[in-house]
Amino acid sequence: MVTAITLMNVERDKINSVAERLAELQGVSEVYSIGGRYDLIAIIRVKHTDELAEVVTEHIRKLEGIQKTETMLAFRAYSRHALDEMFSIGMEE
Amino acid sequence: MVTAITLMNVERDKINSVAERLAELQGVSEVYSIGGRYDLIAIIRVKHTDELAEVVTEHIRKLEGIQKTETMLAFRAYSRHALDEMFSIGMEE
Amino acid sequence: MVTAITLMNVERDKINSVAERLAELQGVSEVYSIGGRYDLIAIIRVKHTDELAEVVTEHIRKLEGIQKTETMLAFRAYSRHALDEMFSIGMEE
Amino acid sequence: MVTAITLMNVERDKINSVAERLAELQGVSEVYSIGGRYDLIAIIRVKHTDELAEVVTEHIRKLEGIQKTETMLAFRAYSRHALDEMFSIGMEE
Amino acid sequence: MVTAITLMNVERDKINSVAERLAELQGVSEVYSIGGRYDLIAIIRVKHTDELAEVVTEHIRKLEGIQKTETMLAFRAYSRHALDEMFSIGMEE
Amino acid sequence: MVTAITLMNVERDKINSVAERLAELQGVSEVYSIGGRYDLIAIIRVKHTDELAEVVTEHIRKLEGIQKTETMLAFRAYSRHALDEMFSIGMEE
Amino acid sequence: MVTAITLMNVERDKINSVAERLAELQGVSEVYSIGGRYDLIAIIRVKHTDELAEVVTEHIRKLEGIQKTETMLAFRAYSRHALDEMFSIGMEE
Amino acid sequence: MVTAITLMNVERDKINSVAERLAELQGVSEVYSIGGRYDLIAIIRVKHTDELAEVVTEHIRKLEGIQKTETMLAFRAYSRHALDEMFSIGMEE
Amino acid sequence: MVTAITLMNVERDKINSVAERLAELQGVSEVYSIGGRYDLIAIIRVKHTDELAEVVTEHIRKLEGIQKTETMLAFRAYSRHALDEMFSIGMEE
Amino acid sequence: MVTAITLMNVERDKINSVAERLAELQGVSEVYSIGGRYDLIAIIRVKHTDELAEVVTEHIRKLEGIQKTETMLAFRAYSRHALDEMFSIGMEE
Repeated sequence: MVTAITLMNVERDKINSVAERLAELQGVSEVYSIGGRYDLIAIIRVKHTDELAEVVTEHIRKLEGIQKTETMLAFRAYSRHALDEMFSIGMEE
Repeated sequence: MVTAITLMNVERDKINSVAERLAELQGVSEVYSIGGRYDLIAIIRVKHTDELAEVVTEHIRKLEGIQKTETMLAFRAYSRHALDEMFSIGMEE
Repeated sequence: MVTAITLMNVERDKINSVAERLAELQGVSEVYSIGGRYDLIAIIRVKHTDELAEVVTEHIRKLEGIQKTETMLAFRAYSRHALDEMFSIGMEE
Repeated sequence: MVTAITLMNVERDKINSVAERLAELQGVSEVYSIGGRYDLIAIIRVKHTDELAEVVTEHIRKLEGIQKTETMLAFRAYSRHALDEMFSIGMEE
Repeated sequence: MVTAITLMNVERDKINSVAERLAELQGVSEVYSIGGRYDLIAIIRVKHTDELAEVVTEHIRKLEGIQKTETMLAFRAYSRHALDEMFSIGMEE
Repeated sequence: MVTAITLMNVERDKINSVAERLAELQGVSEVYSIGGRYDLIAIIRVKHTDELAEVVTEHIRKLEGIQKTETMLAFRAYSRHALDEMFSIGMEE
Repeated sequence: MVTAITLMNVERDKINSVAERLAELQGVSEVYSIGGRYDLIAIIRVKHTDELAEVVTEHIRKLEGIQKTETMLAFRAYSRHALDEMFSIGMEE
Repeated sequence: MVTAITLMNVERDKINSVAERLAELQGVSEVYSIGGRYDLIAIIRVKHTDELAEVVTEHIRKLEGIQKTETMLAFRAYSRHALDEMFSIGMEE
Repeated sequence: MVTAITLMNVERDKINSVAERLAELQGVSEVYSIGGRYDLIAIIRVKHTDELAEVVTEHIRKLEGIQKTETMLAFRAYSRHALDEMFSIGMEE
Repeated sequence: MVTAITLMNVERDKINSVAERLAELQGVSEVYSIGGRYDLIAIIRVKHTDELAEVVTEHIRKLEGIQKTETMLAFRAYSRHALDEMFSIGMEE
């Protein structure tokens, strides 16, 4: 499983609508509206890096209302949860 | 479920060991070592805000090797996954 | 009691009007126009985190004239004053 | 009443002890340990600007463990609470 | 005497006109157009903090052409000059 | 009269002593300990640019306890006060 | 061979088209769309510094959709690959 | 081929030695010492994301002398050169 | 001789034309278009500080296309070249 | 002629000595101690880019007392002075 985290700044009045459309995107596992300097954070979980590239450049970056994105690849996951299993149900092969 | 995201900068040679100890903390659901300006990101999932305060101020901030932390409360979660159910198994009441 | 602090930058000529509307919002305990890099600071005091999420994402962020917000959850309060009592008079249960 | 807000960054393991000593200082009404880029925020409420100067330069800045402070004078307060009355009980004339 | 310093960024072609109007404001003792990251700096000298609040929020911030202001309260003055006397001539009581 | 403004960050516990030594320097007209991101601000008023260079590079920068300085030349002064006269009494020719 | 690296921020919806036109420019060896704070990075490889100046100021900077560029000259290359040979095929003399 | 770019700040006198050791690492295709805000930039080219994670977290980050790293995954490459072929000679399967 | 250095950010497509008009200004000795975070750098060499103020505030800042300027006074010059002589030929007394 | 500009931050008490040693380096045409956020600026003028790389990486960066450098290549020079002639006297071929 390839995981990445995208921090986003979004136009004031579009935070909710952008979060909803993000969460519908294939490969976007969770989106949170957050306090602090950023407005949204998305956790992307896909099978291969190419899919990650597509999710970010073809979908996330083109969503209207997003002002700035900062995507960070996760090198390694540490968790007592079996994340791969939990999140790979329903993932395209 | 109360969720928060903590971005961290860690001493060069302690990234792996800090990530492992973080992931063992009650309330820390996942930790990722990431590219970009930060070194680690932790997803905290707890029942109440008091627990969140304790995880961050009594545990995370006191871990040796952590240089800077930036914790952001998640106001709302957007996901096709039933996150609360997935992650509340084994959570203290 | 859940407390949070929101730092804001506001359009030059709307600082006063935004402060007044903020102070009328349910959950916003005090607003100060301040010197320094930020224009306004609001202290939010509510019963539950959900209310905090609603105040910030449904009300504060949508106020016309606000350019940037940075909301920080208070983990713990330290005071010789009985803050909970002082501020919970008139709070919705 | 003269009000000011001080944002602080504090050494990792001294956040709690510094917050406690701050809250004991004459003139410091509340201290919160917070998420985000800063570690602590103090609300200072005094009768005159000279007292504000003394609290910040003679006391807060000299507390061991504080790395950075950013004090912002409150020009105006907006609140449905009678803040002056609530906080001036027990204030030195 | 209450003194404050305001750093300002101003629209390119309005630096001169903004400086002149600032210098005419009651409470503004001196304005300098400066090199470096800021365009103007104003020294405000008034009798009471309320006047300071008014000068900054009711006058300075509303001057057309000002993009960003950062006002810093002076806690203490150190000078071989008798600043209070020098500048309080002609000050409203 | 050549005027310049120097913003300074100073070691926590040396703000007062540094301000006093600064104010004794020939050419330094006033020093203020201030709120905000900087700790001290000095107003330098001299007859010629060479003196300005000397005050900053030979004296201010060498004062023990100063961490960072940012000196900005004043291009033009705007004031209802006769600043040159007020401050040139006692200035070396 | 003179090598330089240009980091770029680009308008949200033009990242792909800008990258394609960049890669067609004489002297631009590779362009990558990347995660993190920047959107694109171009590796420029030319024979002489004048060509580098031309590529950056006459071509890259004028491409519509580019918001910010930061070009850094490579002082020295370290690689097990014979970069000069690999990339000088087809280079104008 | 998975490509990533790592920007680095390095201790003043170790730039050359760090660059040499970096260039010897399996997966590091090129290293340049550069002008601007960063000291070194490394281009990493590997077969799979896991190798990328290993190169960065197990090797690059542990090199003595490196102060800060910022690794950015390349989503897509644009080039008239057949980069995959040019750089996959001698790559471990 | 009074020397100052001005760093500038300029609108993408006006870098060349702004540089040319800058270089024609009395007092502007050289202008370079540069890599890195800034677009242009001008070296100003004049007889007196008043001329410096005029060049910057009356001419440079008013040039159409300039977005941001940061002018830094040179306190002292160090060079094996006789800069004053080299550059004072043709300077107005 | 290849020209580059290096901005530097230097240890407080070493600004003068570092400037003097810089100005003695082959290829360094002028050094200025300056106001603002940086402490020194050096203008480098050499015949070829290799010399520029050597001056920066082998000499400037290794000077004791320098904390941070930011070297920017000049793409083009604009001046009424014949800079190449003025500065190439005495330059090694």
